[in-house]
Amino acid sequence: MPPTITAFENSPDRGRGQARDMRVRWALEEVGQPYDVRLVSFKQMKEPAHLARHPFGQIPTYEDGDLALFESGAIVLHIAEHHPGLLPDEPNARSRAIAWMFAALNTLEPPIVELGMAMLFERDKSWYEARLPMLQDRVRVRLGELSLRLGGADWLDGAFSAGDLVMVTVLRRLNTSGLLEEYPDIAAYVARGEARPAFRRAFDAQLAVFTAASRS
Amino acid sequence: MPPTITAFENSPDRGRGQARDMRVRWALEEVGQPYDVRLVSFKQMKEPAHLARHPFGQIPTYEDGDLALFESGAIVLHIAEHHPGLLPDEPNARSRAIAWMFAALNTLEPPIVELGMAMLFERDKSWYEARLPMLQDRVRVRLGELSLRLGGADWLDGAFSAGDLVMVTVLRRLNTSGLLEEYPDIAAYVARGEARPAFRRAFDAQLAVFTAASRS
Repeated sequence: MPPTITAFENSPDRGRGQARDMRVRWALEEVGQPYDVRLVSFKQMKEPAHLARHPFGQIPTYEDGDLALFESGAIVLHIAEHHPGLLPDEPNARSRAIAWMFAALNTLEPPIVELGMAMLFERDKSWYEARLPMLQDRVRVRLGELSLRLGGADWLDGAFSAGDLVMVTVLRRLNTSGLLEEYPDIAAYVARGEARPAFRRAFDAQLAVFTAASRS
Repeated sequence: MPPTITAFENSPDRGRGQARDMRVRWALEEVGQPYDVRLVSFKQMKEPAHLARHPFGQIPTYEDGDLALFESGAIVLHIAEHHPGLLPDEPNARSRAIAWMFAALNTLEPPIVELGMAMLFERDKSWYEARLPMLQDRVRVRLGELSLRLGGADWLDGAFSAGDLVMVTVLRRLNTSGLLEEYPDIAAYVARGEARPAFRRAFDAQLAVFTAASRS
């Protein structure tokens, strides 16, 4: 039996591949591992059956035999540890690739999500215009540092790794912010990730879910 | 040569052990690995020598022979993978412990840091009082879910692991928010972590840095 992941029955991103199942789908496609998908509604996500799989009532989850995992970063790491192709063999390079996964999730994603949350939920508040530049600048600081480190390379540290995979999915969340356009090298880095055949397959699979849900 | 970590020369938390070097110190103490510390000023953190170690100009970093790592989560995981004591041997339990590390850093820490940032930097803004309940509620949701999953157990998933270590350090950042007191079981969980001898040694070591800096 292939592993089973969970994804939104009706994704709030309207099929743009910004939900966190995209990371897991992409990792599974990179290593050539088929998978099943169980779609969950927002109501189901907060019910006991799903909470048993994910204590915080989110997607994605990952089930493979006796193992049930949650947190997209942990799932991608688990996949990368059990299949060749997403982590270097050399031990130090492997540790550095994992460091980039944590950097994407703990240093880049928080200010990016905070900006996105404000744009979604605080746009009609009196303070929105006053806070927006501060939120944007927090993201710009990180993008500037990332650009400096990337230094024109194709990927963050040698060959494409799980670190790049997670970083690209985090940066894609900026796509309505206008900020990515300020850093052409980072926009090109994201585009390199999106051009990978495994990304395309994963993207098309999540889009098909949204398209089917829209028709029904 | 023991590994070398970096820490703030003069920690903004005034020795409360909330800076991210605390996680790494604690992990090293749990596994009984001695370490050296290089203190860095805020100015040094943004200079090329430190940026070579940490692309985002933060602490902690970790150097061991040829390996240079950044991101506290990645460093704790690296230590846990190379010494017994912080991850279960059984493969599924090991993956779940790592999932808790990611959950602490990617699901719990972002709303906790956002609340802390607002309390630090937006207290004098006209919108502070209006936004505060929203920020607090985002944290409360996660604490409620965490409490439900903990279900009265001592640790998140069986024996104490790197997942608990990271989670406790994330939850400790709430200590001026008043929110931990609303969840006595989580407060007790944090206190269990803080009572571990390895935590105490790590805490005392970072406090000694602050005390020495205050005297000079």
